[in-house]
Amino acid sequence: MTFEDNLSNIVAQLNENYTQSGLFFSRNDLERPNRDVIIKLLSDFKRLMFPGYFGSEHPNQTTAPFFVGSLLTSIHERLQHQIELALTYQAGGRTEGIRARAEEVCTELLAELPRIQKLIMIDVEAAFDGDPAAQSREQIIFSYPGLVAIFSHRISHELYIRGVPYIPRIMSEYVHSRTGIDINSGATIGEFFFIDHGTGVVIGETTEIGDCVKIYQGVTLGALSTRDGQKLAGIKRHPTIKNNVTIYSNVSILGGQTVIGEHSTIGGNAFITESIAPYSRVSVKNPELCVVQPGTAGFE
Amino acid sequence: MTFEDNLSNIVAQLNENYTQSGLFFSRNDLERPNRDVIIKLLSDFKRLMFPGYFGSEHPNQTTAPFFVGSLLTSIHERLQHQIELALTYQAGGRTEGIRARAEEVCTELLAELPRIQKLIMIDVEAAFDGDPAAQSREQIIFSYPGLVAIFSHRISHELYIRGVPYIPRIMSEYVHSRTGIDINSGATIGEFFFIDHGTGVVIGETTEIGDCVKIYQGVTLGALSTRDGQKLAGIKRHPTIKNNVTIYSNVSILGGQTVIGEHSTIGGNAFITESIAPYSRVSVKNPELCVVQPGTAGFE
Amino acid sequence: MTFEDNLSNIVAQLNENYTQSGLFFSRNDLERPNRDVIIKLLSDFKRLMFPGYFGSEHPNQTTAPFFVGSLLTSIHERLQHQIELALTYQAGGRTEGIRARAEEVCTELLAELPRIQKLIMIDVEAAFDGDPAAQSREQIIFSYPGLVAIFSHRISHELYIRGVPYIPRIMSEYVHSRTGIDINSGATIGEFFFIDHGTGVVIGETTEIGDCVKIYQGVTLGALSTRDGQKLAGIKRHPTIKNNVTIYSNVSILGGQTVIGEHSTIGGNAFITESIAPYSRVSVKNPELCVVQPGTAGFE
Amino acid sequence: MTFEDNLSNIVAQLNENYTQSGLFFSRNDLERPNRDVIIKLLSDFKRLMFPGYFGSEHPNQTTAPFFVGSLLTSIHERLQHQIELALTYQAGGRTEGIRARAEEVCTELLAELPRIQKLIMIDVEAAFDGDPAAQSREQIIFSYPGLVAIFSHRISHELYIRGVPYIPRIMSEYVHSRTGIDINSGATIGEFFFIDHGTGVVIGETTEIGDCVKIYQGVTLGALSTRDGQKLAGIKRHPTIKNNVTIYSNVSILGGQTVIGEHSTIGGNAFITESIAPYSRVSVKNPELCVVQPGTAGFE
Amino acid sequence: MTFEDNLSNIVAQLNENYTQSGLFFSRNDLERPNRDVIIKLLSDFKRLMFPGYFGSEHPNQTTAPFFVGSLLTSIHERLQHQIELALTYQAGGRTEGIRARAEEVCTELLAELPRIQKLIMIDVEAAFDGDPAAQSREQIIFSYPGLVAIFSHRISHELYIRGVPYIPRIMSEYVHSRTGIDINSGATIGEFFFIDHGTGVVIGETTEIGDCVKIYQGVTLGALSTRDGQKLAGIKRHPTIKNNVTIYSNVSILGGQTVIGEHSTIGGNAFITESIAPYSRVSVKNPELCVVQPGTAGFE
Amino acid sequence: MTFEDNLSNIVAQLNENYTQSGLFFSRNDLERPNRDVIIKLLSDFKRLMFPGYFGSEHPNQTTAPFFVGSLLTSIHERLQHQIELALTYQAGGRTEGIRARAEEVCTELLAELPRIQKLIMIDVEAAFDGDPAAQSREQIIFSYPGLVAIFSHRISHELYIRGVPYIPRIMSEYVHSRTGIDINSGATIGEFFFIDHGTGVVIGETTEIGDCVKIYQGVTLGALSTRDGQKLAGIKRHPTIKNNVTIYSNVSILGGQTVIGEHSTIGGNAFITESIAPYSRVSVKNPELCVVQPGTAGFE
Repeated sequence: MTFEDNLSNIVAQLNENYTQSGLFFSRNDLERPNRDVIIKLLSDFKRLMFPGYFGSEHPNQTTAPFFVGSLLTSIHERLQHQIELALTYQAGGRTEGIRARAEEVCTELLAELPRIQKLIMIDVEAAFDGDPAAQSREQIIFSYPGLVAIFSHRISHELYIRGVPYIPRIMSEYVHSRTGIDINSGATIGEFFFIDHGTGVVIGETTEIGDCVKIYQGVTLGALSTRDGQKLAGIKRHPTIKNNVTIYSNVSILGGQTVIGEHSTIGGNAFITESIAPYSRVSVKNPELCVVQPGTAGFE
Repeated sequence: MTFEDNLSNIVAQLNENYTQSGLFFSRNDLERPNRDVIIKLLSDFKRLMFPGYFGSEHPNQTTAPFFVGSLLTSIHERLQHQIELALTYQAGGRTEGIRARAEEVCTELLAELPRIQKLIMIDVEAAFDGDPAAQSREQIIFSYPGLVAIFSHRISHELYIRGVPYIPRIMSEYVHSRTGIDINSGATIGEFFFIDHGTGVVIGETTEIGDCVKIYQGVTLGALSTRDGQKLAGIKRHPTIKNNVTIYSNVSILGGQTVIGEHSTIGGNAFITESIAPYSRVSVKNPELCVVQPGTAGFE
Repeated sequence: MTFEDNLSNIVAQLNENYTQSGLFFSRNDLERPNRDVIIKLLSDFKRLMFPGYFGSEHPNQTTAPFFVGSLLTSIHERLQHQIELALTYQAGGRTEGIRARAEEVCTELLAELPRIQKLIMIDVEAAFDGDPAAQSREQIIFSYPGLVAIFSHRISHELYIRGVPYIPRIMSEYVHSRTGIDINSGATIGEFFFIDHGTGVVIGETTEIGDCVKIYQGVTLGALSTRDGQKLAGIKRHPTIKNNVTIYSNVSILGGQTVIGEHSTIGGNAFITESIAPYSRVSVKNPELCVVQPGTAGFE
Repeated sequence: MTFEDNLSNIVAQLNENYTQSGLFFSRNDLERPNRDVIIKLLSDFKRLMFPGYFGSEHPNQTTAPFFVGSLLTSIHERLQHQIELALTYQAGGRTEGIRARAEEVCTELLAELPRIQKLIMIDVEAAFDGDPAAQSREQIIFSYPGLVAIFSHRISHELYIRGVPYIPRIMSEYVHSRTGIDINSGATIGEFFFIDHGTGVVIGETTEIGDCVKIYQGVTLGALSTRDGQKLAGIKRHPTIKNNVTIYSNVSILGGQTVIGEHSTIGGNAFITESIAPYSRVSVKNPELCVVQPGTAGFE
Repeated sequence: MTFEDNLSNIVAQLNENYTQSGLFFSRNDLERPNRDVIIKLLSDFKRLMFPGYFGSEHPNQTTAPFFVGSLLTSIHERLQHQIELALTYQAGGRTEGIRARAEEVCTELLAELPRIQKLIMIDVEAAFDGDPAAQSREQIIFSYPGLVAIFSHRISHELYIRGVPYIPRIMSEYVHSRTGIDINSGATIGEFFFIDHGTGVVIGETTEIGDCVKIYQGVTLGALSTRDGQKLAGIKRHPTIKNNVTIYSNVSILGGQTVIGEHSTIGGNAFITESIAPYSRVSVKNPELCVVQPGTAGFE
Repeated sequence: MTFEDNLSNIVAQLNENYTQSGLFFSRNDLERPNRDVIIKLLSDFKRLMFPGYFGSEHPNQTTAPFFVGSLLTSIHERLQHQIELALTYQAGGRTEGIRARAEEVCTELLAELPRIQKLIMIDVEAAFDGDPAAQSREQIIFSYPGLVAIFSHRISHELYIRGVPYIPRIMSEYVHSRTGIDINSGATIGEFFFIDHGTGVVIGETTEIGDCVKIYQGVTLGALSTRDGQKLAGIKRHPTIKNNVTIYSNVSILGGQTVIGEHSTIGGNAFITESIAPYSRVSVKNPELCVVQPGTAGFE
């Protein structure tokens, strides 16, 4: 049987699949939030935070206010529209009160921008302080994935705490895709935060992180696994990291009751499901070592 | 010496390199499979599986059959052409029987799509069940990298098992690049599969995974390292994971004889090269812990 | 208060932030190195190294010299301009001697290309030798992220050792973003090098790697963490890996005095901060294991 | 005075201009019809009329219905939205009854498509019959600007007669820009119509053209000029061309009472403001001619 | 002989052509003005003149100043750079005084914008007054090619009169390409000017046009032809059109001494090389007319 | 009836239209020549003819050969493919001898390029000599539509005389669309040719033009109109223009037997269907003139 002989048959079967699932036809007349627009918004927030570094503009003392006002206006219009789409889609098409709520959320978020920018400039300092390979602060702004991740988080977190659906996750997964750093928008993160390298970092929804924390690639601040997970939605299930903690690469710290005390250092590759006292130094046991004959290296 | 003085010299040397390697001129008159076209095909398969979520179309009961039939026809034409290119290139330009084989493979794959879609909808359920942070199934479809990876794998696996070269790997490496999840197209994966977060996950070519398995970021289901590796091509060298197993972050499980028994849970950061009995709970030893004086945290 | 009522206020606050930081207005009249141009240069180097694999060109014995000469000329022009921008920006706008230095660096780098290409062809062999799943050398060139990373590193390292700022890091972070492999351009890497899968690999600035080394995903060759890190800039703080070493997934090896002796194999998930003798085989301790009752799997 | 010194001043003056005109701020919160979307719609109508000639699709007997149904659905959605925007903008933001009217117009227009397509296929015959240089009907479809113009007119006229504002003009001016042929969407045009070459052709809003008419480049079917022209809006002020008329290049025929009788031929460059009887042959007087001495050609 | 056998030969011949002409290698190290940037500048001037009509922005009373200031700053930066390139290229690479002159010209032009905008708004009125088919002023702004042409001319003329090379012509030819209206940037044009339809209109460099002039498609205001034309550069060789003149389609008016007196009307298709008194009405002679037998229409 | 109720009905009717015409399904499995590729080829020929003017390359004495050889190779590959598609499509899918013929045509055309370039450089001189407004030869290369048209014609004519279908017309109509100049690829045109302004120029398939001819906008060198035109295919039906002729704007010269003798000048707006002796000066009769009362201008 050729493809064309089978075409009507495949069409019918796929259509049957669509019909049987509640995920397709029920709200398909509603416009969904647009991933491309949301990613462009993140990029425009970056131009606002770091004028001159990413766009083609070069604002100075005289021209910066025009640049800022114009970009803010444009961000406001697009962001409010996406928030409205997200809220309407979540509400199954009900529109009552939704435009007003979108306007309110968007206005609040933009009013927070000066404060957020200050936080991010402090994060730049944390990176410069924490990485001897950083040749300058400019290099950090240009290139560091850890800065991309915390910058985006500080924006998307503002949407998360105001109950906007879909958009914070689209933002965080975009950054996850580009940097390998997966920070759930719900996480609470203090000042002077630095993620070095960052690939494989996971920071869960109910994580709390204090000031002056530094974490490395592959660190998981996660939950204990569960089946039937929706029962746990909203419950604190990720750890708390106090001020001045350093966590080395590939460490996993799990559980909502797990607290890493201040000024502690967690050595690489540890798997931690219980709390650690302040001023602790944790390290995995030394590995076993044997000298082998030349030609027999490996685990075969 | 300026660049221009040296230009002919560099040209001659690079040309010499090309000539001495068998990788350039021998088949350079053959058209290679096109990465951009293959990535676009993956994206169109996604529109077919999740109509209304990614493209601009909003099919409903009446219009869906037209949408599906039109997109399927377009996918068929492009996919068959790419398969033909891949087979011809592999055959060093020999064309006998290749168009017929490409048509056959493509027709078979498209006939499997309704079944594959059902599998993927079950994977959506697995993600919703497994992640308390998932606010809705729609959010999973929009954003979850684990879903991107299993969706793509279920397509590329169909090409792999029919012996199509290059294309499955181009698909899996594209997804690897976007999600950090590297599933070799040869791996066999059961129903209700969920990868949470996913960065750093590696699932090797001869891995077998049962139903209801859940794995986390940084998990390797790999082979023991080898030199002169081509001797092992085709031999089972990656583990077998039975039904209802959970594997925490950064676990490495290696070797073709290694079997993780059903209903087992593997705690984070374990390194496993031997089989684990069913209903086991495995965890790495507790790390060493010492309290340090303020100001001396770290490993210096 | 509406957004528009607050607009002037937000503008003023952001402008105040810009003014107070030294990162914005002081050099904003200088053109910065352009990330898009630099990424395109990497892509053109790839076309030069692997003619016929990525662009639309199909050079043969007769036409290859024209292709090579033309592409080299174009790369030279753009690369020299970016180097000049980077040096000028770093110098705060001072231009004396900078064009000549840019010309010198660019000329030297391009003269090295034939040698670099030979190295990369040897890296292709290392991948083919090291991975039984590799069906052909062509597949490695098309798709392997480890090859992307070492290819880019061998280019950007030439810029690094000649003191070009910003550009090497933009290159390495671009590759980091696409592959999850983060090799600092300062690292020294020998022949026949293979990174398998690669997500989460970190290789620090002062790392030294010998010949015939193979590393897996999640491996960190890093520094011990530090606060006030700029004091350590330029000091060797990352490990030395001797010839013929294999390092399994998720291993962290830290510290400038740490040496892994030749022909050693480091088992997965080890955390190593001290030197390992040649011909060693290192493995983490076996994990704890207990059989649990059905229904109680997990760490809850 | 530098630009920056003057910037606030220019801003203030331009803002003053905006404020004083009624064209800017009064309806600036309404979304305007989108020119790019409308041009894309024209292009999609062309794919529908000439399947296989312009897009990448190659529908056959089996697959054509899917292609057609899918494209129609997509056109319907976008066109209806643009009509709604145009009507709403015209109505100053009033929305009552507008969505229903947009749906009605769009449904009617799409129901006319099979009839319109037949007309256009007859126009292809007219071009093939009328131009000895046409090597095939396919060439006409690929390339003839006269066909582009009549194709677009037969679509936009359907919008015009249903009172849709803005969109018909955007369509006709787009075609005008690409072909130099300016047909007002209000014009009535019969079957078997052919415009050869076409640059400079103008066909006014109240023109009536019969069947089997052929016109050449530079032909104007226009109105007598007027000041205070809005008084004449809606009045017939362009000529009537009866069946089987041929009009040569650069002829101008003006006036609402001017009728060119059937089977007449109008020689090139004539300027006509009065009616012409059927079966007439009109030609401008012979030009004056004098032989000049070598070296003195020209009008100097 | 195959293409490849002949390749070196063709290369040598083309290179010989380049070498023998002064147009290629002599200034090929200088950056030329960039056509794409200049066209984008025209488009941005249009957004400035008609805010809300072409871009995605919707400025209102509050936000317009930010939009204007930001766009002006961006235009200033790019335009000044292009002027500098054009002047430097013309000067054969000499740079002395050129940046200052570019800054001066650019500053002057931008200071004229409020005045120019007022002129263009009057041109909109002229179009609305002159065309009964215009349904609204908005439609004119959206779609009328005559408005595009006069808008662009009023900008490029400011560059022309300040001696900027290349850029005015690139602007006018871009508009010529899109509208078929070719206004040399040197022409002087008064207020309330309207070109209807416009295809084929040519207005020469030394043309002078008064206020309230209306011209139709195909009108040439040109020079008498000449060989060895460079001798006439700078001399007035195009006509003068006084106030309140109307010129119908396809009229050619040639010569620097030719003056069309005020309040005159020139009927279509006239060829005029001598002055016309004020308050004249000019029309070509009636064409010859004969009635032909059915079946013999045409000039054969 | 809604759109959706009617959808199947419209689909059926359009499908019926497709089926009844021979233009759609019969050869729809053949790939058609690709308009975008052909336009890009024209653009690349322009880069070859005027290196440094349009692309981003800046070849000099040393680098030009590489640039030329590389671009020629790329043009060759794409052009040969398009010729093969065009010939195959015309042959209804028959492929015998077609690849060889495509190779032959392409090789011949590229061998002619050095000669063609010399012709075009002479055309640049003709423009500089003929237009006092031309500030430099560079400006002509950057901007003059007449040069675009003759450049493209000199290329497409080489394809036409070798019997390549579709492609010459796609080239000439593309240029027609951009410049308003419609030169049929069959026309024979001598050296030192200049079209000034050019909008509305039509030069028919069997036109012959000598050396040193200059024509203005709106000039038609056409055929007498005919019905049942295919009978005249291949017969000379357009005029012959001898050396050193000047033709002013909006002149129409028609007929295959019409010869304009050398050194003649044809005044604007003439309509000519008979031959003109050498050294003639032709002008239309003076228009009628009357002085009207103020307030009564116009033809109303």
